[in-house]
Order: sequence, then C-alpha cells, then structure tokens
Amino acid sequence: MVKQMPLYIKVNDRDNVAIVANAGGLTKGTRFPCGLTLMEDIPQGHKVALADFREGDPIVRYGEVIGYAQKRIQKGEWVKESSIRLPHPPDLHQLPIATKTPVALPPLEGYTFQGYRNADGSFGTRNLLGITTSVQCVAGVLDIAVQRIKKELLPKYPNVDDVVALEHHYGCGVAIHAPEAVIPIRTLQNLSTHPNFGGEVLVVGLGCEKLSPQSLNAKGEEDSLVVLQDYQGFADMIETIMRKAEERLKRLNERQRQECPLSGLVVGLQCGGSDAFSGVTANPAVGYAADLLVRAGATVLFSEVTEVRDAVHLLTPRVVDEQVGHALIREMEWYDRYLQRGEADRSANPSPGNKKGGLSNIVEKALGSIAKSGSSAIVDVLPPGEKVKKQGLVFAATPASDFVCGTLQLAAGMNVHVFTTGRGTPYGLAMAPVVKVATRTELATQWHDLIDIDAGRIATGTATIEEIGWEIFRFIIDTASGKRTKAEQHGIHNDLCLFNPAPLT
Amino acid sequence: MVKQMPLYIKVNDRDNVAIVANAGGLTKGTRFPCGLTLMEDIPQGHKVALADFREGDPIVRYGEVIGYAQKRIQKGEWVKESSIRLPHPPDLHQLPIATKTPVALPPLEGYTFQGYRNADGSFGTRNLLGITTSVQCVAGVLDIAVQRIKKELLPKYPNVDDVVALEHHYGCGVAIHAPEAVIPIRTLQNLSTHPNFGGEVLVVGLGCEKLSPQSLNAKGEEDSLVVLQDYQGFADMIETIMRKAEERLKRLNERQRQECPLSGLVVGLQCGGSDAFSGVTANPAVGYAADLLVRAGATVLFSEVTEVRDAVHLLTPRVVDEQVGHALIREMEWYDRYLQRGEADRSANPSPGNKKGGLSNIVEKALGSIAKSGSSAIVDVLPPGEKVKKQGLVFAATPASDFVCGTLQLAAGMNVHVFTTGRGTPYGLAMAPVVKVATRTELATQWHDLIDIDAGRIATGTATIEEIGWEIFRFIIDTASGKRTKAEQHGIHNDLCLFNPAPLT
Ligand SMILES: [Ca+2]
Ligand SMILES: [Ca+2]
Ligand SMILES: [Ca+2]
Ligand SMILES: [Ca+2]
Ligand SMILES: [Ca+2]
Repeated sequence: MVKQMPLYIKVNDRDNVAIVANAGGLTKGTRFPCGLTLMEDIPQGHKVALADFREGDPIVRYGEVIGYAQKRIQKGEWVKESSIRLPHPPDLHQLPIATKTPVALPPLEGYTFQGYRNADGSFGTRNLLGITTSVQCVAGVLDIAVQRIKKELLPKYPNVDDVVALEHHYGCGVAIHAPEAVIPIRTLQNLSTHPNFGGEVLVVGLGCEKLSPQSLNAKGEEDSLVVLQDYQGFADMIETIMRKAEERLKRLNERQRQECPLSGLVVGLQCGGSDAFSGVTANPAVGYAADLLVRAGATVLFSEVTEVRDAVHLLTPRVVDEQVGHALIREMEWYDRYLQRGEADRSANPSPGNKKGGLSNIVEKALGSIAKSGSSAIVDVLPPGEKVKKQGLVFAATPASDFVCGTLQLAAGMNVHVFTTGRGTPYGLAMAPVVKVATRTELATQWHDLIDIDAGRIATGTATIEEIGWEIFRFIIDTASGKRTKAEQHGIHNDLCLFNPAPLT
Repeated sequence: MVKQMPLYIKVNDRDNVAIVANAGGLTKGTRFPCGLTLMEDIPQGHKVALADFREGDPIVRYGEVIGYAQKRIQKGEWVKESSIRLPHPPDLHQLPIATKTPVALPPLEGYTFQGYRNADGSFGTRNLLGITTSVQCVAGVLDIAVQRIKKELLPKYPNVDDVVALEHHYGCGVAIHAPEAVIPIRTLQNLSTHPNFGGEVLVVGLGCEKLSPQSLNAKGEEDSLVVLQDYQGFADMIETIMRKAEERLKRLNERQRQECPLSGLVVGLQCGGSDAFSGVTANPAVGYAADLLVRAGATVLFSEVTEVRDAVHLLTPRVVDEQVGHALIREMEWYDRYLQRGEADRSANPSPGNKKGGLSNIVEKALGSIAKSGSSAIVDVLPPGEKVKKQGLVFAATPASDFVCGTLQLAAGMNVHVFTTGRGTPYGLAMAPVVKVATRTELATQWHDLIDIDAGRIATGTATIEEIGWEIFRFIIDTASGKRTKAEQHGIHNDLCLFNPAPLT
C-alpha cells in the first residue's frame, strides 16, 4: 500500500478540531498540506486542535459544541477525552419544536423489491417459520425441537428460509403489573406478528406463567398454541411441536416472492462499536440512503435514545408537528429518569472501544449517531416496542445497546436492518437480514467475510457520501429481495434481548 | 385407579384451613371421615375452612397467619384468594436474631461421591469445557463454533461431558459504573470459574465492550483469550476458537472421577411452578435431604428473596450470629427497595399457575417455599452472584425467577441443582445437573420422562417425608457421581439469565 498523505477530516466550517484519517495514526512533527504541524503522536480517528484554546473555550465538531477545554490546548495538540469538559445536555423544556420541518424531497420513482405480501398489508423480506414463546421455561425443550425441525423438516420445504424460535427471558418471575412491564409485553406481542412470519406463528407456552400464551396468539386459533403442561412429557411435547411446525412449513412453502412497492420496507438503522469515523463516513452515507428510502415511500427507523439525547436540539426542529415533538421529548425525559433511578447518566454510554476509536464523549458520539437519520422530516415517534404506524422517517425510542435496539426495531416491524460499525461487531439477527457497513476500510478489509459495505472509502476520498449512499440503498433493495448478507451466509444469529425496565420477582 | 377416600392435608395443629388432596378435587357434599362436609366444590390443592370465620379472623396454615378473612367464611367452604386479606410483611426492624440457632445435628458419616477434584480445592460433578463471553455481540459467532465443536471434536474426547457457552445479554450497552452493576459483573466472573469447568476456561470477547474479557480470565493466561476484533474475519474466528477448544478438550479428557467427600457438594435448592402441595410434599422432603446434606458436610443453598420475605421471622432466629442475621435483613431491605423503585411489591410474586394450584398469596407461598431449607442453622448469607465461602446451610439471595435464581446459584458454585415443581416445568441447565422433584403424583405420572422423583407419594400416604428425603439425598449423590438426570438425558439446557438491576444505556 502506498504511504498516504497526512490527512485530517474537518466536518463543518465552524469546527476547531478535526480527526486524523490515516490508518495507524500520525506521528509528532507531521506537517499537513495546510501547514498544521502535530505537536504529539495522534492515533487514527482522534482529534487534533486546529486552533489554540484557553481553558473554558468551546470545542466545536460537526458545527456543534462537544465540550469545553479543561486547560490550555495548543494548535496541533491531541484533544483527548481528559482535555474536554462535558457540557450540560440540551434543556428539554427549551427546545424549538417543528421550527425547521424539512419540506418533502421529490418522490423517487421506479424502485420496487421482490418480497412477500402478507394478508395484513405488511411485506416480508424473508419467509420464516416463527415460533414464539410466552416464557423462558419452554426454551430448553423448544431448542431441541427447533434443531430437529431444521434437520429433519426444513430441507423438505425449500421456499422457507429458516425456523426461528423467539426465545427470551421474560414471561414469569417478573412484576407483570408494574407500570413499565408494558414495554416487554408489547414487544413480545409485536414480535409474534413480524412481517417475515407471513401471518403464521406457533406459540409455545408452559401453562402456569404470568404472560399468557394466548396473548401472543394474534389470530386466536386454538391450533396455534402448544401449552407444555397439557402434554404427556418430553417426547409428546417434541412430537407435537414438530407436527404443528410441519403444517405451517407446508403452507409457508407455497409462498412466492413478487414485486412489492418500497413502501413495504421498514428499514431499521443502528450503529454499534462506533468510532470517530462513524459520523463522517458510514452514518452520513446511511443518512443519504435514508433520504432515498423516504423519497421512495419506505419507512425508516432511527433509535438509540442515549445517542440522541445530546443532539435532540437538532432533531426537535425537524419534526412534523408539536405532537411528534412532545412525544420525542417525552422519550428523552423517560430515559433521563430511568438512568437517574439506577444512579447512572448519559455519560455511561460511550464504551472503551468508542473512546479508543476517538470518540471523547457522548456529545461527540451523539452528533455522529444522528447523521444516520439523514435530512427528512420526522413524522412519528414510537415508544419502545411499539409497531410502526406511518411511512417516512420515524424515531423508534430504544436503548443504544445493540441487540436491545435490534429487538425493539424488529418489534416495530423492521424487515431490513442496517448496522454501521467502526470497531467491528459480527452482529446478526434471525428474524431479518442485517446489512453491515464499516466506517473504515481497514475494518472492511480485515473482516472481509463479515462486512457488506465499506464506507471507509469516503475518508480516503475514493468515494463520496452520495455514492456510498446509493450503494447502500441498492444493497437494501437487493437484500430485501432475497440476496443474503454476509451474516446470513454464515448463519450468525444473535439472541433477542428484551428491554424490561420493570423489576424481577 | 381405585377411587380414593376423600382426603385433606392439615400441616400444623393450629391450622384452621387444610388443602384438598384428591386428584381432580372434591365435590360439594363430600363428607370426610372426621365429619367435615364440603359446602361447595373445591379443586385439588385448594383450601377448605376447618372452622367458621368472622370477617377479620386470622387464617392459619403451617401454624402461621397467612391472612385475614375478608368476610364471613363457613366451615366446609372454599377459602379462596378473594376471601383472604394479605397481612403486612414482617417488620424488618423487629426481627429476633439468632434467638433459636439450631444445635448441630449429629454428623452423618460414610457417604462420598465420585467426582472431579480441582486444583483450587473445589469439586466437579461434570467434566465440561466452558467457554465464557464478555459481551453478547460474540454469541452469534460462538454458537456456530460450539455447534461445530460438539459435532466434530467432542466425540473424540469421551471423558468430556459437554461444551458449554456462557452466553448472556451483558457486557456492553449497560451502565457499567452504576452501583448495582456489581451484581452481573461478579456473577459472570464467578460463572467463569465454575467447578464443573475444571479450571479450564476459554474467554471469547469482542474488543470494544465495556466488560473487559481479561476480567473473566481468572488465570490470566493470554492463551485463554480470543478477542474477535484481533482476527481476520469470521473463518479465522471460528478456526481459532475450535483450535483452542481442542487443546482444552485434550486436557479435560485426561480427568477421571475419583472418590470425593460430600463437603465437595454445593447443592442449590429452588422451587418453580409451585402449588399448595409444594409446602407439604416436595419442599419438606427436600428440606429433610438438606439436613442430611448439612450433616454430611455439604453446602446447601436456598434462595428466592420474594419467597423468603414473608417468612423471614422464621429464619432470622435460625442464623448462627448477629452478623449473618443482619446480612439476611439487608438482602430483604435491598429487595423491598428494588421492587418499590419499579412500583411493584412482593404481591407481584405468585403466578396464575401458583394460584390455580391453590396458593392464595405470597405468604402461603413463602411458608411452603422455606420448607426447603430444612432445620439447620443458617451459617452465611450471600449477596446475589457471590461465591460460597462456608459449608452448611447458606442463604444465597436471588430473585425467585427460575433461571435467574439458577444462574446466581451456579455463580455461587452450585454443582447439583434440586428443583421442586407442582405445576411442572421442563427446567434444565447446561452447567450442572438438575434433579426435578414433583409435588404431586399426577404430575410425575404425566411427565414421566421429565420428573426424577415423585414426592406426591407423601400426600397419598404411600411414603413419608423421611423416606422421600433419603431418596432425594441418595439421588443427589448418584447424580453428583455421574448419573444423568431426566433433563440431561434429553439435553434440555435453558439459557443463563443474568440479574442486572442497573440500567441499560
Ligand atoms: Ca449507536
Ligand atoms: Ca447501538
Ligand atoms: Ca419458588
Ligand atoms: Ca423459583
Ligand atoms: Ca440461546
């Protein structure tokens, strides 16, 4: 590889810091074409001062204040976590609401995908047999049944992509009447009617649990319930589950992909293992793709409350009306209280990996994270675990925790997941395909068989945000139409992670 | 089956209610040999009034007040949940401490088991390859590796019982510095050094997570760590995990069972899917076995804070000293606050199945639940996830939630689990054998291939508590020595469920 020119990335004209783009970082004394000289070694993704700072001076990235200088910092010095004082989060009572609602971009015509049409009006991107559960107690038995179904039955039904057990830790031993129990309960109910299950779902319950198996059986067909306490032991349970699974596999096998409008797509966006490039490569490119999707009629979910909280003043102006604005603020307030109750705050979000990747604090992380939302108007806000109701850009409130966010987006009806990563995670879901976008070319190269799209080319100048945005948009359509992502090729399926803020008993 | 005589079970001389023992319940007009006549149909396990009650009169079972009559109840009537007012829980500031510490029962000599001796002084009951994880992100990849290890490698090492991935939902996206984060963290650390892993453990981490993989690598050997971000993609990860797994399988395969003292046993007791028989059949028999185990030098754990809370006044007198008494009270206080914070209370514990099985409220459930603890002195109290330090009867504080309790008892070092059930659950764990004891013969018959021991014979008068107690004691020794329980025969393995009272981020 040719030794690269020293390169920094400055995002906004107003910025007084920039990040070092070169793989491996740059050494003391490095001189940039503009004349800036590094006063010390700076790792890749970390910030260099573009000006001199006195103590208390604002540090600006993405055109926003990410903090204040803890001490004097000289031009060319490394601006580290320890040199930045965390600012107060935006005051939730002083936010401008719907003051700059973006006008709708011109519709994007001529795009469709090959998917499955469901009776309830939703669209599937995969043809899965879903087996949902009302309580963790049944998971051990169901696992054995599912292994046998995959081995003995699934090969006979080639049009069915997979069998998915919706296992979780909820259902009993929980304070099911506590106010916040509504979150895990509606999550499980909405997961059970996921569009990729094509209206077929089998519910396995125990019989004495707090969450009733009937409450997960949307269609109310007695035949779709297996309550283990009604059966004559293990062998009888396994045989029953397999028999009922095969009936459903037969029906699912009849389904065919057909041309579907992009309004059938519910694309969930998320980042995980972020670094300082997330906000300049992968996330803006995903944001560009989000705008294309919205223009084409799709629903786009962005999430991760703790990564939105510090940038919420940039989002409330973008909502379509007062009601959506207040809903957004309500979710922020709820989460502030939730963290406070557990004696934590938003500063608990960045991980050691984020920091190693150059993200100094949650403000900087949030500014990079919301780039995924593109520039459209925010048409709706969903509390955790609720199903989408509107087309366009929607804020689905979730923790930033990767699989908790993914699970809640699935409950919202997500049928394609787009996941950006800087440090790298082999993330995969069983219920919907996951498209992984790397923020850096080094990661895309190193994890050649895990990363679907390399957005690092934006940092090296070999591709533009627009180009990668279109690439992601087309990749989403191909994926929705049946093309298997890298994670799917290997069969990487992380477990569901429910969000249960209510107590265990 | 011969039609049984009408039978009720009265536990204590002072009781003014008894439970109907007959399968299928009894009908109105049924006359018992003592002359009592039922005023209405009463289902099996449900309570009949043995006297007339005025409104406000105490209702007594197990010799304790389980509540007060909501209205007049006549002798022979069904005493339902709706007719009982829940009493206040015992005042934690008014408890007698160490006032009736039981004198040690005579030692029980001559019993040993065939187990594995570990270098750290602990004893294994199974010979497992444990692969622990520092974050949920790695689980999808590890699952695939473990499936291949089981299929391609494990058959070459017949002395190794199984390969167990310690997957969980913790490690990142969590407020890791919140005060209560100590619970999941120490749980994972203690699970990683479980006695059934024989001192060998492989740690798989991602590289950017909040919980450092190093903190799970007790021996600190660099070679025991696989950090996925260090590898060249999926194939490289799988190959590395398999290679390191095989090195450990080779060493584990050299191990042999040998004679071990019963002081090497850490037996965890739990009930789940309880009914009104739990407190008169299975739990007292397990309590008898617990006394035998303590006499033989073993460590016995009982748990489930919400099922101890209402009977804690019967436990604090039994502790060995003030310090242990205060530790027990501290765990009750902590849980009271935890429930209150989530706007729930102890009344959230009984499940619909418990109630269907005749348990009217948490007081009645608790009195039946603590019968598992037998009659020994309580020598220690462990906060959730801590490792045992003393031999004898220990209260390990945990939620009552079945797999959360099981996971925390495993972290404490449990190498045999005894699980009593009335309604029935196919409970199984991967890390230690689970002996399942039914409270009713009907369940043991119906679930013939899942229940190990039928304690229902106590209710029908065909066996005594002492006889079943000895049977359980011998079954535990056989199980510890390698005999496979019903759940093990089928390979039923429920997932670990961590207790994380701290917030997600
Ligand atoms: Ca994120
Ligand atoms: Ca995330
Ligand atoms: Ca219990
Ligand atoms: Ca339990
Ligand atoms: Ca699992």
